Amino acid sequence: MAQLEAQDMAQAVIDRMADCKDPRFKEVMSALVRHAHAFAREVQLTPDEWMAGIQFLTATGKMCDEKRQEFILLSDTLGISMLVVAIDQARGAAALKDAPPDQRPTEATVQGPFFWPGAPQLELGADIGAGNPGEPAYYYGRVTDTAGRPIGNAVMDVWSGDGEGLYDMQKGPDAGMALRAQFRTDKDGNYRFWSIKPSYYPVPDDGPVGGMLHRMGRHPNRPGHMHMMLNAPGHERLITHIFVSDSPYLDSDAVFGVRDSLVVQFADHPPGKAPDGRVMSKPFSTAKYDFKLVPSAA
Amino acid sequence: MAQLEAQDMAQAVIDRMADCKDPRFKEVMSALVRHAHAFAREVQLTPDEWMAGIQFLTATGKMCDEKRQEFILLSDTLGISMLVVAIDQARGAAALKDAPPDQRPTEATVQGPFFWPGAPQLELGADIGAGNPGEPAYYYGRVTDTAGRPIGNAVMDVWSGDGEGLYDMQKGPDAGMALRAQFRTDKDGNYRFWSIKPSYYPVPDDGPVGGMLHRMGRHPNRPGHMHMMLNAPGHERLITHIFVSDSPYLDSDAVFGVRDSLVVQFADHPPGKAPDGRVMSKPFSTAKYDFKLVPSAA
Repeated sequence: MAQLEAQDMAQAVIDRMADCKDPRFKEVMSALVRHAHAFAREVQLTPDEWMAGIQFLTATGKMCDEKRQEFILLSDTLGISMLVVAIDQARGAAALKDAPPDQRPTEATVQGPFFWPGAPQLELGADIGAGNPGEPAYYYGRVTDTAGRPIGNAVMDVWSGDGEGLYDMQKGPDAGMALRAQFRTDKDGNYRFWSIKPSYYPVPDDGPVGGMLHRMGRHPNRPGHMHMMLNAPGHERLITHIFVSDSPYLDSDAVFGVRDSLVVQFADHPPGKAPDGRVMSKPFSTAKYDFKLVPSAA
Repeated sequence: MAQLEAQDMAQAVIDRMADCKDPRFKEVMSALVRHAHAFAREVQLTPDEWMAGIQFLTATGKMCDEKRQEFILLSDTLGISMLVVAIDQARGAAALKDAPPDQRPTEATVQGPFFWPGAPQLELGADIGAGNPGEPAYYYGRVTDTAGRPIGNAVMDVWSGDGEGLYDMQKGPDAGMALRAQFRTDKDGNYRFWSIKPSYYPVPDDGPVGGMLHRMGRHPNRPGHMHMMLNAPGHERLITHIFVSDSPYLDSDAVFGVRDSLVVQFADHPPGKAPDGRVMSKPFSTAKYDFKLVPSAA
């Protein structure tokens, strides 16, 4: 068996799975081994570099706790999280790929680490931004299926950081929920609510992944965005963002989550009457976005 | 920036390293990103599988402490550690690859986690096996360079588990060193010492990596072996094993460390006179192995 040349070693590892009872696990691990070995051979990885990699992975594991998931951050910043999202959406929407633009489903993007289940269920039109740093913004639009049929009573979770780039979860152990809620569309599929216009912000960069970004010559910032999750019976769940069109870093999101189709013009307005009749005493913006959901696979 | 197809995303990540000041880091990370993305695309990795991977890596990091390095174990059991050893030795000995068999350097293998610096420096012929479980074995041979010139005063570290498969380090926090020593070859390059005939043993399989091996349908065992590390001025350091020829698992070492050229016939002897004149009251074995070191690069 021995006397393996470097190029044979991946196959030797794969052959060792002859008794594996889980075909999908075997398939995934075989590909992982092949690609990992090909990587090491291609760069002629040295023992010192290998050890640096071991130490990096160990430090990344040590950094993880209930509040921080450094391995997800690693996956995010290497574009792997977004790749998995893209693969998943392409799978669900394969038949819709060549549909006319007005029948294409809304693109998905990364969920990120700041979803907090159990946000307050509020009436359409409620203001979740009041009392938080940031310029007021009115969000509205419609949820339909890809054929344009309105989806009433769709559950829409929304969450974001504030106008200074901070999420509620980042404001200390005693901070409660802020800037998040759950709404339901009306019978015509419409939604509307007030929040703030989110700012760009850095992903946590004081750990091993931050060190990697620095060494790569990269900044850690994400452009401003509002998270949206849509759940409606008979339709695929959609997890996405809408991005603020005049935010910095739209062209260099640290986690590669931006899609052109998700960038939304935030219209600026002076103090005065808002679209829902509310009279605003300071400047505000409005952001309209319509969502299209994919019918569930049968 | 946006509307990336899955196959473009790796390049988008690589392009983000435009300002990287370290060409080798950029080369390694670019290859890592390309291969990681190619893996995910090839198997069409699902969000659930991705999350299982995140959880596995996190648990692997959490398992690491001063006494246990689960990421090295992961690397070992996926054949990556041995691949890095093979790449490194091929680099150092590239010019010797096509040398006649009697001028080829001794093959390297993995160092493993059980090297403990500071072992006692003993005279040639000393017995480090006495008092430990296992059949006595006499190890002897010669250290030369690849041209056959003896290397005197070469430092030879040796270490192994006992005849029941346990290393000293595995015998609790208060156990001292056992079955390890540092010798020096005589002026003709000869070495000789007594120890035991090492048994096969399992790598630690009560953690995440053990779970992976189990799911792969693999056993966790390594065939019996004696670790050797050779340091001599003017020569490349050699880290290797000699393997016991009648040990189980020679054909399926859990860490892929076996090389045909490192498998040594352990000759069995009844009680009586040993090659060094010692009179043995119980059966013993003898193992002869000659080492060839590569001259250092200039």
